[in-house]
Amino acid sequence: MGNKNISMAVIRRLPKYYRYLGDLLDRDIQRISSKELSDIIGFTASQIRQDLNNFGGFGQQGYGYNVDALHKEIGKILGLDTKYNAVLIGAGNLGQAIANYSGFRKAGFEIKALFDANPRMIGLKIRDFEILDSEDIEEFIKENDVDIAIMCIPKKGSQELADRLVNAGIKGIWNFVPVDLDVPESVIVENVNLTESLFTLSYLMKAED
Amino acid sequence: MGNKNISMAVIRRLPKYYRYLGDLLDRDIQRISSKELSDIIGFTASQIRQDLNNFGGFGQQGYGYNVDALHKEIGKILGLDTKYNAVLIGAGNLGQAIANYSGFRKAGFEIKALFDANPRMIGLKIRDFEILDSEDIEEFIKENDVDIAIMCIPKKGSQELADRLVNAGIKGIWNFVPVDLDVPESVIVENVNLTESLFTLSYLMKAED
Repeated sequence: MGNKNISMAVIRRLPKYYRYLGDLLDRDIQRISSKELSDIIGFTASQIRQDLNNFGGFGQQGYGYNVDALHKEIGKILGLDTKYNAVLIGAGNLGQAIANYSGFRKAGFEIKALFDANPRMIGLKIRDFEILDSEDIEEFIKENDVDIAIMCIPKKGSQELADRLVNAGIKGIWNFVPVDLDVPESVIVENVNLTESLFTLSYLMKAED
Repeated sequence: MGNKNISMAVIRRLPKYYRYLGDLLDRDIQRISSKELSDIIGFTASQIRQDLNNFGGFGQQGYGYNVDALHKEIGKILGLDTKYNAVLIGAGNLGQAIANYSGFRKAGFEIKALFDANPRMIGLKIRDFEILDSEDIEEFIKENDVDIAIMCIPKKGSQELADRLVNAGIKGIWNFVPVDLDVPESVIVENVNLTESLFTLSYLMKAED
């Protein structure tokens, strides 16, 4: 595959298109113009046409977009029809919340196991998962064809863990640790930095005063 | 206050500066050049000088930056020295994880109460908080000078809740619901959209194949 020339800005908008198109389908709306889509998403109609043209352009002059076809197509572009095996490391509060997160199925991700380094956590059951010992993670990744690791551990030791994951052959990391992980270019890292988001909120609140 | 002319791109980089400067302080490093800062943060030295110039420019020719002073100053710009009262709505898995999140204190946010609409949750204790009935949220906001609401509820009913919060005088929303809330311009909304992040990871994994 690889639409490697698509800018990250466009890519980051795709999930939003996908979400709004899904909402339209829920309301049984089957056809929409770029102008109408613009009204609900808040991007300009020209931006929408330009974004979607990156992927071949699904609109027809005078008809607009077929909502279902566009939704399916963007889903494919996002790789939601591709299945990935995932493990989650760090079964604390946040890790448990993430493990229970219903969005994984939609994205084609299947969590295969939870890991923790704390002896008091190892062996506990969270929903369908027994928490396994972090020591065994490399072996598990290799034996179960795990593609993605979700990191929910504290900052300390996170780079060392990332190194171990990379050595075990992991291809992507969904990283909740507030650290910029140093990994080979071929390994995808997507960060969710709650502190940065909270600090941005704090800044905007103060600026509004 | 209000550095309203600063672009969101610059603002979104500030928490990162703050984090790296904090790491330097932890390692007792008191002085750093924009070149050295560039090496560890990964922005260019010229970008760093330009970013920090937006706020008055803290560097001195031939000396570089005083790490502690710059850290403190960025903290002030981010409003981390300003105290805000917060409530969290939706005490499910994610809500509980967020409620336990240690970053709030650093950002000057104090969670005053948790709310849930589920009768089976109301009255339960999560750490220091008894879960209160969502019905009572407007009254609580007004009586306790609450500035910020953290929304961790399902999609359905989220706009109605946002309307109630706005009417009760809330000034900011940290929104974990995958919905673009419609609020007056004076109300700050900062979104954390886990699904969008996950879909981006999925896209990048597929593009790498």
